[in-house]
Amino acid sequence: MKFYRTLHPRPVAIIGSGDTNKEINFMACSWITPIAEDISALGFACDKGHYTYELIQKYKQFSVNIVEDLDLIWKVGTSSGKEINKAETFNIKFKSGKALSVPLIEGALANLECKVIKDVEIGEVMFYIGEVKHWKAQNFDEYGYKEFWKVPLHKSGKAFAFPSKKLRFLK
Amino acid sequence: MKFYRTLHPRPVAIIGSGDTNKEINFMACSWITPIAEDISALGFACDKGHYTYELIQKYKQFSVNIVEDLDLIWKVGTSSGKEINKAETFNIKFKSGKALSVPLIEGALANLECKVIKDVEIGEVMFYIGEVKHWKAQNFDEYGYKEFWKVPLHKSGKAFAFPSKKLRFLK
Repeated sequence: MKFYRTLHPRPVAIIGSGDTNKEINFMACSWITPIAEDISALGFACDKGHYTYELIQKYKQFSVNIVEDLDLIWKVGTSSGKEINKAETFNIKFKSGKALSVPLIEGALANLECKVIKDVEIGEVMFYIGEVKHWKAQNFDEYGYKEFWKVPLHKSGKAFAFPSKKLRFLK
Repeated sequence: MKFYRTLHPRPVAIIGSGDTNKEINFMACSWITPIAEDISALGFACDKGHYTYELIQKYKQFSVNIVEDLDLIWKVGTSSGKEINKAETFNIKFKSGKALSVPLIEGALANLECKVIKDVEIGEVMFYIGEVKHWKAQNFDEYGYKEFWKVPLHKSGKAFAFPSKKLRFLK
């Protein structure tokens, strides 16, 4: 049994990497978390065997894209950018960021542009901590997504959940 | 608007800190993620103003507890261990870990005992990376929690969601 499943279901993102003028890649990731607010920082775990790792080592930047499209998440999560050009193969529509030349997936619930400020090696993983240089989200207010039930949550393997529509408010 | 809400709703845990033979504390945290599998590692963000920070600096260990009790999460998340003894005040039943002398909340969905292997300072936060030395979970199998819809997800402020019971399985 896997200890990390105790922290699932959890949101899944698509990480964009590279430079839109040169080479790019996308991967799926649910091992991601906000880290700080005074410095707008978040972090995610990247296997050092991934093409995304090579691109982030090279360009020191990445994007975080929250998308509703589970099929796209699955496709980018089960293929390697070392073997195929995922953007072309899966017909991913993207544009370059405003602050950084990272690829942002169009039509996403949210896109965040991050510059690597620290990388921490833990076994086979590089945990990248990025400062958010620019971000935008659709249908979003001070409480977060108005339609928060659209945020995909990875349970395990091929199984995904979504947040319940019903909230519980504490007193 | 807050960039970090793009990564919510997300699982919320109660972090236990200190040493059960000396002094302990509990805090709520949803800025937590698995990090690696070859080294069983996870990380969470701890404000350096918190009592938990003082205890982890001192004892270099912490526990992660996944509980269904939103009221308890709220109470430990909105009070300070510098002012009150939370375990006594909120009548938290806990025991010491098997591998480490960290406090584990009884009856939790999961308890993980972690030894700090790295700490990373990002602005006001210390991001603690812990190696899981022992863990257990109730009603849990290779796919995770059998009743995964009981894992509380923090949306924002006093609003919590839960994962939908219905899953979507990809092909």
